[in-house]
Formats: sequence, C-alpha cells, structure tokens
Amino acid sequence: MQESLEILIDLFVVFIAAKIGGEIAERIKQPPVVGEVALGILIGSGVFGIGFSETTAVVSTIGAVLLLFMVGMETDMAEIRSIGWRAAGVAVTGIVVPFAAGFGFMFLRGGGTVESMFLATALVATSVGITARVLSDLGVIARAESQIILAAAVLDDVLGLLVLSMVTAFANSGTVAPSQIAIIVAKGVSFIILAAVVFPFIVGKLEDRIEGLRHRNALLSVALGACVGFSILAEEFGLAAIVGAFLAGMGFANVPGHSDLKRDVGAIGDFLVPLFFVAIGMQVDLGSVMDPGVLTIGIIVSVLAVLSKLIGCGVAAKGLGFRSAFTIGIGMVPRGEVGLIVATIGISIGAISKDMVSTIVIMSLLTTVIVPPVLPLLFGRREQVPEAQAV
Amino acid sequence: MQESLEILIDLFVVFIAAKIGGEIAERIKQPPVVGEVALGILIGSGVFGIGFSETTAVVSTIGAVLLLFMVGMETDMAEIRSIGWRAAGVAVTGIVVPFAAGFGFMFLRGGGTVESMFLATALVATSVGITARVLSDLGVIARAESQIILAAAVLDDVLGLLVLSMVTAFANSGTVAPSQIAIIVAKGVSFIILAAVVFPFIVGKLEDRIEGLRHRNALLSVALGACVGFSILAEEFGLAAIVGAFLAGMGFANVPGHSDLKRDVGAIGDFLVPLFFVAIGMQVDLGSVMDPGVLTIGIIVSVLAVLSKLIGCGVAAKGLGFRSAFTIGIGMVPRGEVGLIVATIGISIGAISKDMVSTIVIMSLLTTVIVPPVLPLLFGRREQVPEAQAV
Repeated sequence: MQESLEILIDLFVVFIAAKIGGEIAERIKQPPVVGEVALGILIGSGVFGIGFSETTAVVSTIGAVLLLFMVGMETDMAEIRSIGWRAAGVAVTGIVVPFAAGFGFMFLRGGGTVESMFLATALVATSVGITARVLSDLGVIARAESQIILAAAVLDDVLGLLVLSMVTAFANSGTVAPSQIAIIVAKGVSFIILAAVVFPFIVGKLEDRIEGLRHRNALLSVALGACVGFSILAEEFGLAAIVGAFLAGMGFANVPGHSDLKRDVGAIGDFLVPLFFVAIGMQVDLGSVMDPGVLTIGIIVSVLAVLSKLIGCGVAAKGLGFRSAFTIGIGMVPRGEVGLIVATIGISIGAISKDMVSTIVIMSLLTTVIVPPVLPLLFGRREQVPEAQAV
Repeated sequence: MQESLEILIDLFVVFIAAKIGGEIAERIKQPPVVGEVALGILIGSGVFGIGFSETTAVVSTIGAVLLLFMVGMETDMAEIRSIGWRAAGVAVTGIVVPFAAGFGFMFLRGGGTVESMFLATALVATSVGITARVLSDLGVIARAESQIILAAAVLDDVLGLLVLSMVTAFANSGTVAPSQIAIIVAKGVSFIILAAVVFPFIVGKLEDRIEGLRHRNALLSVALGACVGFSILAEEFGLAAIVGAFLAGMGFANVPGHSDLKRDVGAIGDFLVPLFFVAIGMQVDLGSVMDPGVLTIGIIVSVLAVLSKLIGCGVAAKGLGFRSAFTIGIGMVPRGEVGLIVATIGISIGAISKDMVSTIVIMSLLTTVIVPPVLPLLFGRREQVPEAQAV
C-alpha cells in the first residue's frame, strides 16, 4: 500500500500536469482535454520517473464517473423527447455511418469482431462539451445550425452510450449465441429503464426526504452516492460503469437545488476530471504512438472519423442547404473524451490491443484539434463575429 | 493494483458509511465526526467484509490535507495578531496544562519519551469546528465567552500544529542530541516562516497572474496545487503533511474570490473529508477499544483531557467570573478531529502503539460528545435561548 507521502506526490504530479496541460491548450485555443492527454503522454513516457500508480488509478476512476455524471446532469429527458426530428435524424445517421465505417475498416483489415466493434464505438459519439464550448466562444449558440448540433450531440451521447453498453456486454461475455445475446441485451435494457425512467421518478418522490436530511450538503451526498452506486450497478448488469454514472446524473437534471448541486459537483469535477485525462495519456505507449505503422493507421482512422460524421450528419441535414449541412457535420466531428473513454474501457476488459488504444487516442485528439480553428470560418463568413468573441 | 470496479465499491462503502454516520450523529445532536468515526470502527471490524484498501488510503489522505487546508483558509494572520490578550492567555495555558498532564501521565506509567509526547500532543488542540458549530446552533456567537473561545481555539490550532510539528520531527529523527534537535527546530521554523509569511506575500503579488490564467476555475487549481504541494514540502522539512496544508490554506485567507474558493474547496471537502474520519475509525482495532485495560486508560485520559483544559483555560479567564471561566473551559474541551489526526500520524510513523491509537480515539470521541449537551446548559440559564435554536 502506498504511504501518505507517495500518495500526495503522485497526486501532485498528475494534478500539476493536468493544469499545465489545460492552461497551454487554452492559450493555443484548444480544448483543455487535448493538453491534459498530451501532458499525460509526456509523464507516462517516464521522463519524470513517475509511473501509473494506485493513486492515479483511484483518482482517475472517480474522475471518469464524475465526468459522465456531470454530462448526465445536463441531459434532460424531457428535452430529448422534444428534440426536433431533424436533430434526431442528424444524431442517428451520425452514429450509424461512423459505426459502419469503423467496423468495416477494422474487420476488412482482419480485426476480430470485438476489436472492430470497439473501434467502431470509439468513432460514434461526438464530444458535446467541446462543440458547445466552441459555439459559445463564437457567440453563435442561438443560430439554427448550433441548436441542431447541440440537440443532436446530446442525443448522440445517449445513443453512443447505448452502443458502448451493448458492445461492452458483448465483449465481457465473449459469446455470439443468439440466446446469450438476448439475455445481455435484456439485462442492459432493464438496467437502463431502471436508471433512466424509474430512478428520476424515485428522486422526484424523495425530494422532501432529501431536504429533510440533516447533514451538511445532503443533496450533494445523495447525488454522489447515486453516481458511484449506479456505476457499480451498471457493471453488475454487464454495462460500463460510466453508463450508470450518466444515467444517475440524468436523475438529478430537474431536482430542486439543481444549480447549487451542479456547482458543487462541478468543483469536485474541476479537481478530479482532468486527472482522468492525464491518466489516459499516461497509459498511452509513446513508442506505439510514434510507430509509423500505428501513426499511419491513426491518421487513416481520423480521416474516416471526419468523413463519416460529415456524411452521416450532413445527409440528414441536407435540407438546410450545403453550407449549413457542412457546418453541422463539422460541429459533430470532435470525439474528445468519449473516444478516450471507449479506449480506456476496451483496454481494461482486454478487448483491444495497446496499439488500438494509441490509434483511438490519435483519432480522438486529431478530430478534437481540427474543429476549433475550422468552425469559426464556417460561421464567420456569413456573419461578422466581433474580434473579441472570435478569438 | 485495484480494478475500477473494486475502487468504486470501496469508495461507495466508505462514502455511504460516512454519510449514514454523519446523519445519525446530527439526529442525536452530535457532531458528524463522531458518527463518521463510529461507522468506520463498525466497518473496520470486518462485518461487511471490507478491509482498509488502497482506495481508502488515497481518498482519506486527500481528505485529511483538504480538511486542514479549509481550517487554514478560515485562519487570518491579521486576526491572530489582533487577538485579545485574554484569548491568547486562554489558548497558551490551555495548551501547556493538557500537554504537561498528558506527558506526565504517560511518562509516569512507564511510556517512552516519544510515545508520551504524542499522547500529550493529542490532548493539546481544541477542535475549533465542533465548538463553533455548537455556539452557532445556540445563537450565542456574539457573546463575550463565545468570542474568547473562538479566538483562543484558532490560536490553539496554530500552536497545536506547531507542537505536533516539533513532536513529529523529533519522533522522525529519533534523536535527543541537542545539536540535532536544534537542526530539526531550525528546519521546522524555516518552513513555517516560508509558508506562513513568505507564501501569503507571494500569493498577494501573484493575484493578477492567477486571474490571468485561462483554464476553468484557475484559482481553485492554484489553491489545490498549493495545498498538496505544501503538504509534500512540509514532509520534506520533517513536519507533518497537514501542517503544510494548514499553512497553505492561510495563504488564501484573504485572496480575492475567497468566498467562491471557500465554497468550491468546501464541496470537495464535503466529499472527501468524511472519508478521512471513516478511515480513522477503520484503523481502530475494535477488540483493543473493548479491552477493559485500554478502555479504562481511555476513560482516565478523557477525564484528564477535560480537567486539564478546564483548569488551563479557566485560570486564564478567571477575571471574568467563575461561570464565564467555566463556560470558556468547557467550550475548549472537544478534541475531535485534531486528536484523531495526531493518532493517525503517530501510528503512521510508528511512534505509538495500536492501543495508544485506541486510547486517543476514545479520548477524542468522549471529549467531543460531552460538549454539545453541556454547553447549552451553561449558556441557557443566563439567557433564555429559543427552543428552536437550542435543540
């Protein structure tokens, strides 16, 4: 077991790396996650003599479930139900096309079913946070294209997690018998119904009870307990822990005191979530990323990721005209943390190789890095964006 | 290394124990720390099949430094300088008498110098949080006795940590040569000057730079970095990590944006600090606490702890009349988390035995438990406290 001093030193190095990485990224107009993963790769290469320790495992595991809990808190079931058909279409075709492209590419290259499914899943989900941040920085949130991007990205998160759930369950059981698959799907679906429909109902009914609790910040306690509890339950049902965390978060999307809760969870998240991204970087083998073969595949997969989202989303949005459809497609390109999470789960259950992790990391970073510089050009030509907002 | 699922399960059990313990304690009008430690002892007894894991070690270590950082943030150097002479007298004699009593008792029973010093140190510091909470619940914060208690308790924290620093340094080196002791003291004092005088000055100078940082919640990052960084530095200087965390917190007592920072650190603290107290309970050997010999010593030491504070503080406050002096003395009795922290450090550096840990835990809990019911009687008779506030 690590001594207190070792724990503090490991925490310090990972924390400082996260913050330096985030700060550098912001200064070169990139999402913080890019800098956090990059610094993680640097530390993981061993130049600072720090390895992936138990402390890193603990804090990054907590960071990962908190991140998805926070995304869940922003996802309102009522909003998803009222989502426009066009946005729903963008989300669905924006998932089907990348999945097919990823699976086809890997399978044709001789990959196994499970490995191909994981790469396909990594290509599926747009990172809603990164796109939302860029749109907000540009001051174009109210534009029709932005609204469709955001609505589609949220639905896309939900659908992406569903796909991940199924693929994880499939990989965990390693079975292909139709009856077994039916059981896996039934278990997964029943958990999702339990968490997404029954749980928010229970939270609604228990609001008064939660308010009646006497200890400090009781709502935060209940929320964190639900976050961790549902993460464990999800695993018991054969799904990924983060799916449980996401669904638990949705249960608190409409709770009274939501804005205080969001702020408190946000503070804990500001502390722990960046550590998760540094930890992802630390698990990347720098030699593997630098390997010409892996790098080439990574770039090819990145191109595939961009084109498949552009085509998938663009086709569904083509009624808005070419430029708008193209803008929406580009807005859906960043895979960011979602791709990275898929990679983490894949390697943790032994479903994918280290080289595949490197490929997915390259793809996640490249698709994330290209959007912040391109999106302003697409929005900017039609409407002069004030300099202060554009930069 | 623990798997993600194991990490989440360990975290869940400890977190739920903390919250149930805190809730039960609040309902029977006791400070949450009592319930948290009690539930920790229950879990640690093995009835739930959960042991003290790596996860518990990591989260509780972070919780401990955060707790002292938060206490430090509430401790303003300027306020300490302006503290009344009477409060300063209460603090100083309230430290000297319990230290002498604890050391004398243990030494006469045949304890070693280091062990006797640790017991003495555990008797030294009042838990400012518990007393402040009870006074605030009673609505008597503005009363002269309350003001002296609070001012003295804060100074008492600072002096208590100084004593702990010296004792820890002494135990770590295991030396008694005067020249060696001089070096230890010089190292400790230079760190304290660095952290308590130079660091706040640097933070003041760098305020604009911190505001210029671009990543989200940059002030929180700097504060957490300083908290963990100074904890490590303190260890390097031969002091306890929490002393560094406390001093780092003092550096942020007057920073602009203090109230936001306090709230954010508070949210992280609400999550992690209770886990530290559960972890302390888990490390207590239930068999040892129940052992008639240990229990007897625990009760004797508790009586000693109460009497020595009453005498030490009472004598300094005797000019205010017997009842006020008695009230102030009782207000300074709870040792709460400070005693527990001393026990944790003592066992971690091998300076004290498991039985001594049990003795200190018994003393910390008993001195903490007796104050909430007694203090209202002392304040209540002179001024009718409204029912709603008194309960």
